[in-house]
Amino acid sequence: MTGPAGGGPAPFTTDDYRARMRRAARAAADAGLDGLLVAPGPDLVWLTGYRPPETERLTLLVLRDGSDPVLVVPALEAPDAEEAPGGPALTLRDWADGKDPYEAAVSVLGPRGRFGVSDNAWALHLLGLQRRLPDTAYVGIGESLPMLRAVKDAAELERMAAAGAAADAAYEEIRKVRFAGRRENEIAADLAELLRGFGHSQVDFTIVASGPNGANPHHEAGDRVVRRGDMVVLDFGGLKDGYGSDTSRTVHVGEPDPEEREVHDIVRAAQEAGCRAVRPGAACQDVDRAARAVITEAGYGDRFIHRTGHGIGVTTHEPPYMVEGEERPLVPGMCFSVEPGVYLPGRFGVRIEDIVTVTEDGGRRLNNTPREMAIVD
Amino acid sequence: MTGPAGGGPAPFTTDDYRARMRRAARAAADAGLDGLLVAPGPDLVWLTGYRPPETERLTLLVLRDGSDPVLVVPALEAPDAEEAPGGPALTLRDWADGKDPYEAAVSVLGPRGRFGVSDNAWALHLLGLQRRLPDTAYVGIGESLPMLRAVKDAAELERMAAAGAAADAAYEEIRKVRFAGRRENEIAADLAELLRGFGHSQVDFTIVASGPNGANPHHEAGDRVVRRGDMVVLDFGGLKDGYGSDTSRTVHVGEPDPEEREVHDIVRAAQEAGCRAVRPGAACQDVDRAARAVITEAGYGDRFIHRTGHGIGVTTHEPPYMVEGEERPLVPGMCFSVEPGVYLPGRFGVRIEDIVTVTEDGGRRLNNTPREMAIVD
Repeated sequence: MTGPAGGGPAPFTTDDYRARMRRAARAAADAGLDGLLVAPGPDLVWLTGYRPPETERLTLLVLRDGSDPVLVVPALEAPDAEEAPGGPALTLRDWADGKDPYEAAVSVLGPRGRFGVSDNAWALHLLGLQRRLPDTAYVGIGESLPMLRAVKDAAELERMAAAGAAADAAYEEIRKVRFAGRRENEIAADLAELLRGFGHSQVDFTIVASGPNGANPHHEAGDRVVRRGDMVVLDFGGLKDGYGSDTSRTVHVGEPDPEEREVHDIVRAAQEAGCRAVRPGAACQDVDRAARAVITEAGYGDRFIHRTGHGIGVTTHEPPYMVEGEERPLVPGMCFSVEPGVYLPGRFGVRIEDIVTVTEDGGRRLNNTPREMAIVD
Repeated sequence: MTGPAGGGPAPFTTDDYRARMRRAARAAADAGLDGLLVAPGPDLVWLTGYRPPETERLTLLVLRDGSDPVLVVPALEAPDAEEAPGGPALTLRDWADGKDPYEAAVSVLGPRGRFGVSDNAWALHLLGLQRRLPDTAYVGIGESLPMLRAVKDAAELERMAAAGAAADAAYEEIRKVRFAGRRENEIAADLAELLRGFGHSQVDFTIVASGPNGANPHHEAGDRVVRRGDMVVLDFGGLKDGYGSDTSRTVHVGEPDPEEREVHDIVRAAQEAGCRAVRPGAACQDVDRAARAVITEAGYGDRFIHRTGHGIGVTTHEPPYMVEGEERPLVPGMCFSVEPGVYLPGRFGVRIEDIVTVTEDGGRRLNNTPREMAIVD
């Protein structure tokens, strides 16, 4: 299919959204729920393409297996909802300022039932529903249907791959800039500009963690001036055409010493092992275990202080999580990071990260820049 | 008191935050509540100065009259919470990843009681509390304590006045730019740059509504090219040092015709009447009625299609609302807009807006640029 002029991907169609809503309603029924109540946020964007303004007014998508999707919406905003890409697949129930917004929801939900509700729905609205329908029960969608958005369809995977390629292009350029003598902040600003230049509409993070700052996985970028001899962790991403990128490479300013090279090799091998563990039917925790085993065997197990990966899609952090205890199976179309690291307090850190998608044949990386340690100036 | 180097206002002290938390706990008790549960957002910023990262992890401030404030906080984020300006006034109850975050809250809340909860608290967290404490009851803070942040103290009023003065300075500059032949968007960008130049850290809106676009009070700024002979509604504001500005003036490109001048005079008189109605003990709706009466008497009552004003503080739209039916009394220290308008579909609109604060002697305007119709080029 040809994209629109300008080269972006072909827009999702009403049928795409209709299919997602149908799958979600079915998944809810399979999970023993009478329906899903979706508040504004990433779930609503994914299901309908609609991004309402952030206000206290109730906007709520009601999905029930076997029924048409209903959107409860403020009258003022109904025209915008109708024009959203998924709008034609929705039955709108609007409510006017001054009226009880829960009245519109009540008739759609019925007097009893157990519903999944968006984790980030406002407490105010949950209280409103509970008051009007005291015999209904609610459970967070994050808990009851954590994999709701986890499996990407072909059109989504196309966007994920394009976002990954754009992040890779940014990495190829950042390797050419001057590191020594500049502040982490300045290099982070370069990275943000590169991501935007390669088509990102939103930059979520541009971590530049040099020398001892690299040993703190929560470090973002600060005033520290990068010096010759520093290891530098780069970890950056955001949204391009609505889908996320997230990649890390660890570079060195000038020649590394043998220990730096050894730790980098260990992390690279661990990341390779994590990616190789990706296949349909494996458990999420298997990816974590595969990467962690390499680091543990090399004697750095207590220096790998975070999970191996997180899902990515219309947000840059979401289920599935590659972590011990997550026994859910990998399914073709899932996309997540594989990002082991080793952190030596007061000295340096190394992290290497690709987004990987599950295919029938195993994992396919969406980041493909060299994982060998790059030497920068 | 001297501000810090750089000329900003003196920072709020731990005692300022302690006093706010004490007042809020007392107000909750007076409203028949056993306490307040405050989620991340404007209420938490106002009460503690703490802005946690936006995640799904539970952060919750518990205020109970007669007890010290308790902040339930993820262990990872506890150091940042301690360093917040209100941190020293808080008892921290941290919880580690993998633990039940509601455990920490349960011991603070007790097995029963009726609590006010932030409107925007996540449904996920309300469900977690309800599950652990089935005999507790909850009500939205917006409904139970709408005036929680409405009355500003002296240090807040100083910031509100400074934000108003900065918006006024932006208006004085925007009057000098070229309007005719430029798109609304370009003038809106000028306004945003001016607001930032005069110290705003955040620009919330820069409405430039020219000619017929001015007749739609929801119009922001678009591609329309402003022409000689246009009325142009300018309505702009944001945050400076954490407090809001919001002012409107309606200018004319070249000389107005007699009807344009007449409508502008009516709105100006209505805005004047609204401001004069401000005094302690008057009802909010009295301000709306006073402004509306002038427009109604002039025959344009059905063209004034919104409420007269809204409160402002750490956000640019909050209670109190100057609207028919709002019978709560004005109290010294409240800050809100007085912004009547007349909208003639297909032709033009006029709106004039100042932020007004209630003093013992009546209303004091925080915007003081000329309200006469300015002629621009």
